[in-house]
Amino acid sequence: MTRLFNDPDEFVEDSVAGFVAASARWVRPVTGGVVRSTRGAKPTVAVVVGGGSGHYPAFAGLVGPGLAHGAVMGNVFASPSAHQVRSVAKAAHEGRGVLLSYGNYAGDVLHFTQAQDRLREAGVDCRTVTVTDDISSAPAHEREKRRGIAGDLVVFKIAGAAAEEGLDLDDVERLARHANDRTRSLGVAFGGCTLPGATEPLFTVPEGRMAVGLGIHGEPGIDEVDIPTAAELAKLLVERLLEERPDGAAPTGRVVPILNGLGSVKYEELYVVYAAVDRLLTEAGVEVTSPEVGEFCTSFDMAGVSLTLLWLDDELDRLWHASCDTPAFRRGSVEGRVAVAAAADDDDDETEAIGPASEASRRASAVAARALDAVAAMLDEQSEELGRIDRIAGDGDHGIGMQRGSRAAAAAASRAVAAGAGARTALQHAGDAWADKGGGTSGAIWGEMLLDLGAALGDDDAVDAALLSAGVGRMKDAVMSFGKATVGDKTMIDAIVPFADTLRDRLAQGDDLLDAWATAADAAQAAAEASAQLTARLGRARTHGDRSLGTPDPGAVSFALVTRTVLDVLKEDA
Amino acid sequence: MTRLFNDPDEFVEDSVAGFVAASARWVRPVTGGVVRSTRGAKPTVAVVVGGGSGHYPAFAGLVGPGLAHGAVMGNVFASPSAHQVRSVAKAAHEGRGVLLSYGNYAGDVLHFTQAQDRLREAGVDCRTVTVTDDISSAPAHEREKRRGIAGDLVVFKIAGAAAEEGLDLDDVERLARHANDRTRSLGVAFGGCTLPGATEPLFTVPEGRMAVGLGIHGEPGIDEVDIPTAAELAKLLVERLLEERPDGAAPTGRVVPILNGLGSVKYEELYVVYAAVDRLLTEAGVEVTSPEVGEFCTSFDMAGVSLTLLWLDDELDRLWHASCDTPAFRRGSVEGRVAVAAAADDDDDETEAIGPASEASRRASAVAARALDAVAAMLDEQSEELGRIDRIAGDGDHGIGMQRGSRAAAAAASRAVAAGAGARTALQHAGDAWADKGGGTSGAIWGEMLLDLGAALGDDDAVDAALLSAGVGRMKDAVMSFGKATVGDKTMIDAIVPFADTLRDRLAQGDDLLDAWATAADAAQAAAEASAQLTARLGRARTHGDRSLGTPDPGAVSFALVTRTVLDVLKEDA
Repeated sequence: MTRLFNDPDEFVEDSVAGFVAASARWVRPVTGGVVRSTRGAKPTVAVVVGGGSGHYPAFAGLVGPGLAHGAVMGNVFASPSAHQVRSVAKAAHEGRGVLLSYGNYAGDVLHFTQAQDRLREAGVDCRTVTVTDDISSAPAHEREKRRGIAGDLVVFKIAGAAAEEGLDLDDVERLARHANDRTRSLGVAFGGCTLPGATEPLFTVPEGRMAVGLGIHGEPGIDEVDIPTAAELAKLLVERLLEERPDGAAPTGRVVPILNGLGSVKYEELYVVYAAVDRLLTEAGVEVTSPEVGEFCTSFDMAGVSLTLLWLDDELDRLWHASCDTPAFRRGSVEGRVAVAAAADDDDDETEAIGPASEASRRASAVAARALDAVAAMLDEQSEELGRIDRIAGDGDHGIGMQRGSRAAAAAASRAVAAGAGARTALQHAGDAWADKGGGTSGAIWGEMLLDLGAALGDDDAVDAALLSAGVGRMKDAVMSFGKATVGDKTMIDAIVPFADTLRDRLAQGDDLLDAWATAADAAQAAAEASAQLTARLGRARTHGDRSLGTPDPGAVSFALVTRTVLDVLKEDA
Repeated sequence: MTRLFNDPDEFVEDSVAGFVAASARWVRPVTGGVVRSTRGAKPTVAVVVGGGSGHYPAFAGLVGPGLAHGAVMGNVFASPSAHQVRSVAKAAHEGRGVLLSYGNYAGDVLHFTQAQDRLREAGVDCRTVTVTDDISSAPAHEREKRRGIAGDLVVFKIAGAAAEEGLDLDDVERLARHANDRTRSLGVAFGGCTLPGATEPLFTVPEGRMAVGLGIHGEPGIDEVDIPTAAELAKLLVERLLEERPDGAAPTGRVVPILNGLGSVKYEELYVVYAAVDRLLTEAGVEVTSPEVGEFCTSFDMAGVSLTLLWLDDELDRLWHASCDTPAFRRGSVEGRVAVAAAADDDDDETEAIGPASEASRRASAVAARALDAVAAMLDEQSEELGRIDRIAGDGDHGIGMQRGSRAAAAAASRAVAAGAGARTALQHAGDAWADKGGGTSGAIWGEMLLDLGAALGDDDAVDAALLSAGVGRMKDAVMSFGKATVGDKTMIDAIVPFADTLRDRLAQGDDLLDAWATAADAAQAAAEASAQLTARLGRARTHGDRSLGTPDPGAVSFALVTRTVLDVLKEDA
């Protein structure tokens, strides 16, 4: 378990501070993460990686010459915000374009894609290669849906080496994608980590049992078996991975095995497994080259191990073996670097200044700030329960993400209100803060929802029931637009649609705001309960390995809770 | 806990095989450990490090250009045997002498010193620098008694860099000693590892508590406190270490901090602590340079952390920052290496061939082999209890060491007997096997005892009671001669002295062998019980942090058990 921290809410900030202090030879801090502290003779394509914290050396430990140019560092197990991604990418950019690369998780895809859109608008050529090496997370014909685990290292390393050679963005993107196509991983786990400040592990595996394919955030696996011998484990991993030899890779091809400890499966133990991996690969006729055994993508002190196979061709061979020098991964000799100072434009704080607002809109923004305060207080109480629901099929970060995000949003709104902001501006500040601090999918969506609500309310008009309902409608649209990419992925679509539609309809039928809102909140609540029942069913089903019921929706539960809390504030205000 | 292994008894063999397979770029296997697989342009002094397994990257992960030339790899938490040390040192030797360097533990001191004596006899200039960085393990005025922990890395790195520069053995030794003089560490722990095949952790720390100064094998600490915040822990470590600034180091000197995770205190967590360490050191006025945060000396998945401070001067600064390239520690650029093939004389198997023996001596060797079989079977049953006794004040390896050693000795003796060996030769084979496989202090002593017993019995004479008693007397002398260095350290002196003396006296008074042996065994048993009572008292005392009673003696208990078992075999034979 994680025992050493100061304020658990400040864990990542403290950890980043320590990492930066210890790693000045390689990195310097910028808003949202780190970029290299050295520069080569010529500008190159910038490779920007990132994701949630808790997986060191992924991601910041891989920044340095020959590997990544920058790492975006999200909160614990939570995607960084689009704002953070944009900030790191801008600081890393050397004028030749940016490749974004990260593990394929819904929250990361949302935020990195938002950032990519904004970077392109700003004239930066920006591409994306997501890492999808985990063969347990989707079948082979849906490889693009798979999660990224220790294969991150491979894709980042190949992309970084290609950039280092001076290749252009087309080639760097092509090679990163090719590396991902040639990389397969499978992991097993014996027990989960306990996050900073939490009292219970993220997940448990029964004593003496091993979960196969369980994700690095505790996502459900594909099988559970008795703990095998090291040789039997090696056989399981090698056989399943060899079944998925990539197109174009010869059965007798060169393979780099990467045996990765997730945290508390330690080195001697890994080497016992590796002895059998090496033997089995050789017996299978592949040519084993330059193996790596160690910790490359952890999950705090999770007890687990994964095996990655990278199928080399001549191009990948050259790039994989190229020199690099980072805090956590070094190879060969890197010369000709000069230290660079922080640039003045590193800090990419694009949150809008507080402009003029009408008295009426300032009254509305004050109510909004009070509502956010109440929501934050409610989510403080509910975060454990929401985390519990999320853990059943997800990564368990929904509660803590909502807690952090709403707290930051409430504080930002209060500051904006104190500075005279109207509704639009106050909600924009709140939305940016929620996305930054909440992280994950829910952070992105709530951030966007508050921005869209604010855009509907404006800084001038008095907010009446009709305007508020229009704003809620835009919030719904925002969720739906996110939802296209991620239906069922904690997007609260099931709850916000009946809520927004009921609110609109009841107001149209002549109800006053409080009555209409109460009825709409009931509709959201009913949807949340349906979601909770699904969750309970899934809880049972999961123990039998049945994943056919899909994923439950803690986002619907938390959305319904928020509508109740806001109703109470609206009543006080009436 | 350690979950992945095949046969727990073969854990280290399997782990070494995997390490060698994964690390051929740096190392090649030899009897007893590994040496570099590459060679530089000119011969250098050879730096040979080593110790028990379970502490990766200590020791084999630190072999490569610019660091160690070879690592002797003992069994889990057990010193390698003198034979292993000698073998690795001979393979690493490039003609300019050997520096042996290792953590200051009794078993390691015994075996490395034995090996040093033999290497010197063979004409190899050989020196020793033990690492004594752990300030919790003895007061400052007895610094030479302190244990070595993560400071190992510092001393090995400085010695390796000095050798790399082409310095002679005098200078390499001087600089290694100087590095040790300038290095201080302090560790804390929250829980112990579970060794391969064991069902219980080596030690536990009460929930919510932290042991200060607890050793990497679970040796008792100096204090126990509530788990502090990360910043409070940093303050504890920094303050105590700064109190012990080495002679000659300026209060404003340059310091390299090394924050070491013992296994399951993970990277983000270490960085949270490091943020405070860096701040406190800077506030104290020292100049922080090139910090290292990671895993440099582990104890499987032990939950603990240590801080090491290396106080640089210009010479140490140059050597610490010199390039090196090893499986687990790399810095800068290392060029001009060529791969070397294994040499024919790498394998230093000095166990004697089986020579001629009389029929009478062959009868005696058959009895000896049966006795060793019975002893091995008895120790199989008793190893858990012996481990329990040893854990009270030691590292808990006595039971497993005796089990492994006796099993190997019995097998070696049986093979020798089948090949026609007399008593001397059979016991020599058995003694070598016990020392190699048993490891630790007990392995060294039992190995030596069997050799001395064999030397007394010879390969020609019939073994009668008088000859056997003379042999037992020589066994006692062997223990006493070890004992000079290590009184009270599981050396069984308390039991063997009354046993040998009683046997001699009863025979002199006319008892037959069986009666005399039985009386002598009773005397050994009485001594063991006195030791067990001391153990029980210590068990209570330790919870109050009272270490004044000294250490208990599981070696006396196991010796007494062996005498009983041998008596049964002698009776069957009569």
